[in-house]
Amino acid sequence: MANLTIIGRVTSPFVDLFGTPRQAGLVQAVARIDIEPAWRAGLDGLDGFSHVWVLWIFDRNKAPGRARVRPPRLDGATRLGVFATRSPYRPSPIGLSVARLIAVHPDHLEVQGLDVVDGTPVVDLKPYLPYADALPDATAGWAADPLPAVPVRFCAAVHDVLGDEPQLQELIEQTFGLDPRPARHRQRPVDKAYAVRLGAFDVRARLDEQGWLVEAITRA
Amino acid sequence: MANLTIIGRVTSPFVDLFGTPRQAGLVQAVARIDIEPAWRAGLDGLDGFSHVWVLWIFDRNKAPGRARVRPPRLDGATRLGVFATRSPYRPSPIGLSVARLIAVHPDHLEVQGLDVVDGTPVVDLKPYLPYADALPDATAGWAADPLPAVPVRFCAAVHDVLGDEPQLQELIEQTFGLDPRPARHRQRPVDKAYAVRLGAFDVRARLDEQGWLVEAITRA
Repeated sequence: MANLTIIGRVTSPFVDLFGTPRQAGLVQAVARIDIEPAWRAGLDGLDGFSHVWVLWIFDRNKAPGRARVRPPRLDGATRLGVFATRSPYRPSPIGLSVARLIAVHPDHLEVQGLDVVDGTPVVDLKPYLPYADALPDATAGWAADPLPAVPVRFCAAVHDVLGDEPQLQELIEQTFGLDPRPARHRQRPVDKAYAVRLGAFDVRARLDEQGWLVEAITRA
Repeated sequence: MANLTIIGRVTSPFVDLFGTPRQAGLVQAVARIDIEPAWRAGLDGLDGFSHVWVLWIFDRNKAPGRARVRPPRLDGATRLGVFATRSPYRPSPIGLSVARLIAVHPDHLEVQGLDVVDGTPVVDLKPYLPYADALPDATAGWAADPLPAVPVRFCAAVHDVLGDEPQLQELIEQTFGLDPRPARHRQRPVDKAYAVRLGAFDVRARLDEQGWLVEAITRA
């Protein structure tokens, strides 16, 4: 069988699986990919491209792959074949995400839009080739469009923290806007506060009829 | 480390590495992906999508991955970092190709446009999600556009075979049109006939100033 080589590792604001976006490009957070010394020469020429494919390992999943899964966007009510989904519970636990290249440094990349948890091992990078990879006329079945964002409001108590952290508000709005709740909580809503760790902050929010209300932001 | 699972295998007209296209979508050949019994339920729902990502193993490459490679389209004269290329000589030998879905059967897929040699093991299938994967405004460096096709002509002697095999002519035109010669032969052209095995046929052609001239087609 093929041997995979870990060529780098991601540093991202998504510290926990909970809250990590389920597709690339939905949250415009900046992440960093540090490249192993033996493979740094492999970056030569990548700065001519606007986007890069990142192939990575779903290393936080301890559950084995399944042939059928319940995608969260169908509220966990419908089972589909795993190959008709981007579910992490796959026979080969390889994730595929396109990211915008912000900068190529000798030993690391800065990228935007990566839907990957902090510390994720990367096994390959490939340039995004528009003539082969961009199929704007492709049609999709049950997952044709991104879900509409859930509105996010902030309690007065958190405005001080947001004032000191210019990117934090947008990151919170995008992360909670995707509705990170597990599928079973969407089927039967639970009245509870959800906490997402984003970078150095714990963000606590509660869902009501108007959307998410962010109640507290504390340094982790 | 992650364990990869072979979930299927490709049957394609590209019997040898030589002549196999280097990107998906450049040759409109039809291929088949047979799915292992344990993973056939994973196809449920895939028929709603027009395209599918195929993740496969470069299992014919015995050479180890390299940090720098010489892409054939730069005539083997220029070295680039492997992550700026789609070279098969990668640290993790995973290929990534998008294919058009022609039909989803209970035990196999029919697809079009796959740049994969016959017998290639497949480790994952993912639906193509236009909202996440199609970036028509992405820009590419040295590989911005497909190369112009090299013209292909046919000797009178081969017209009988072509008449009996309606798809063969187009397959030959597309395959030789991509110029399958190795990079070192592009730097210093060699006066020789090149043979490509396409399905049941050996196709022999020679490059002259007008392009490829197909001299012989024989049943393999």
